[in-house]
Amino acid sequence: MQPIYEGKAKRLWETEDPTTLRMEFKNDATAFNGEKKASFENKGRLNNAISTLIYQYLEKVGVPTHFVRQIDETNVEVKRVEILMVEVIVRNISAGSFCKRTGMEEGKAFETPIIEFSYKSDELGDPLINDDYIREMKLASVSDLEFLRESALKVNGILSELFSEVGLKLVDFKLEFGRLASDPSRIVLADEISPDGCRLWDLKTGEKMDKDRFRRDLGNVMEAYEEVLGRLKARLSA
Amino acid sequence: MQPIYEGKAKRLWETEDPTTLRMEFKNDATAFNGEKKASFENKGRLNNAISTLIYQYLEKVGVPTHFVRQIDETNVEVKRVEILMVEVIVRNISAGSFCKRTGMEEGKAFETPIIEFSYKSDELGDPLINDDYIREMKLASVSDLEFLRESALKVNGILSELFSEVGLKLVDFKLEFGRLASDPSRIVLADEISPDGCRLWDLKTGEKMDKDRFRRDLGNVMEAYEEVLGRLKARLSA
Ligand SMILES: Nc1ncnc2c1ncn2[C@@H]1O[C@H](COP(=O)(O)OP(=O)(O)O)[C@@H](O)[C@H]1O
Ligand SMILES: Nc1ncnc2c1ncn2[C@@H]1O[C@H](COP(=O)(O)OP(=O)(O)O)[C@@H](O)[C@H]1O
Ligand SMILES: [Mg+2]
Ligand SMILES: [Mg+2]
Repeated sequence: MQPIYEGKAKRLWETEDPTTLRMEFKNDATAFNGEKKASFENKGRLNNAISTLIYQYLEKVGVPTHFVRQIDETNVEVKRVEILMVEVIVRNISAGSFCKRTGMEEGKAFETPIIEFSYKSDELGDPLINDDYIREMKLASVSDLEFLRESALKVNGILSELFSEVGLKLVDFKLEFGRLASDPSRIVLADEISPDGCRLWDLKTGEKMDKDRFRRDLGNVMEAYEEVLGRLKARLSA
Repeated sequence: MQPIYEGKAKRLWETEDPTTLRMEFKNDATAFNGEKKASFENKGRLNNAISTLIYQYLEKVGVPTHFVRQIDETNVEVKRVEILMVEVIVRNISAGSFCKRTGMEEGKAFETPIIEFSYKSDELGDPLINDDYIREMKLASVSDLEFLRESALKVNGILSELFSEVGLKLVDFKLEFGRLASDPSRIVLADEISPDGCRLWDLKTGEKMDKDRFRRDLGNVMEAYEEVLGRLKARLSA
């Protein structure tokens, strides 16, 4: 059997049901648009566990997602979607590409969260684009963008609160959305939410608990992911 | 005497009146954020003449600008402004950095003009930013941005019509705005509008009549600027 898609961190497999997929988390890590590569034992398991806890929580509080159920340590069943080619990034604190682009130092809290859209294209390096670009490239409609902004801010509110309860600052994160194969008029949150696509800083020590440990060779990458999982489990598995 | 500012293409000089400046057009040309440099005889004169015709026309049709009067071949008197650190780019047809960013081929007409904002910073390469960035960087207020968008679209309508009357397609262009030194509550169009900051394609032949001739080593750079001036003169000096 062949996956229908193999990406940088996950594989997608068809199931008997044409409206669902199996999403498999790999141990592979990439950074800087694929330039830096590594593999970490347990990464697939940890990201799957973290993402599953978060999607179950988001569903519980009323955010529609692709999540169906966890299958095993590295696999989840998800509703099949047609992914929007627009990635949605939410920023609460300056970091990463925001700082590189603007020259602002890392760690400045924004008064209001920043939302930005990037064109989901590995080839082009997921470039920042604006609403006019998205309209002319026909990546999403004006009302789709309104929905994405609203949803992203809502998820940011929910997850900022959740992470702060476990001693972590949600600095920024990336979301992907898609149109349900079973009902393309409905857009739901898809993909994953894990330390691969979030910046999480320990509230007390300021320590980075996310993929920046890999990007910047800080060491103890999986130890940090394990710590994030442990804290979320303690909060959510009650 | 010393200019109060020396940029890539112009110098600014104080006058006896603290609310006006003399803007001098140099013969220097730069491209790719200053990496490529050259000097062209007559460039200062040509850009000054073209920009003067355009600003006089914009004033005539009711667009508030910094323009006061042409002093001589390479100098204009302008109202002194505090330049907004946001550059406004209007695009009618795909070209330049839009194509590089999105992978779209050159020459596609947009259904509606694209407006984009970039952070005026040579050091950072005038990076694309969005409204949320501008708000958090405190470069302009939400209502300033509304005004910039509206003004840029209005100028685009006026100039697209003007250039089409002289057989030129206005592909894209960059505008700068500033707050009047004499009344900071008023934002006016400042800087210059010339083939240095516009893409102009001949409507019949498709030939590039702008700084892309320099960027791409197409030759006859000043001949093209001279042709643009000649056509505008014939249309406007009536
Ligand atoms: N529910 C879903 N249905 C279809 N595709 C999905 C769904 N959730 C995520 N995807 C897509 O599956 C892929 C996951 O693999 P990943 O390794 O993240 O790929 P990539 O290297 O493209 O980021 C992504 O392209 C993502 O957009
Ligand atoms: N009316 C004005 N008052 C003050 N500054 C202005 C005015 N019009 C333009 N400027 C600024 O003057 C400079 C013109 O010189 P230029 O060579 O274009 O500089 P740069 O290399 O920064 O683009 C620009 O920085 C522009 O923003
Ligand atoms: Mg991915
Ligand atoms: Mg300039």
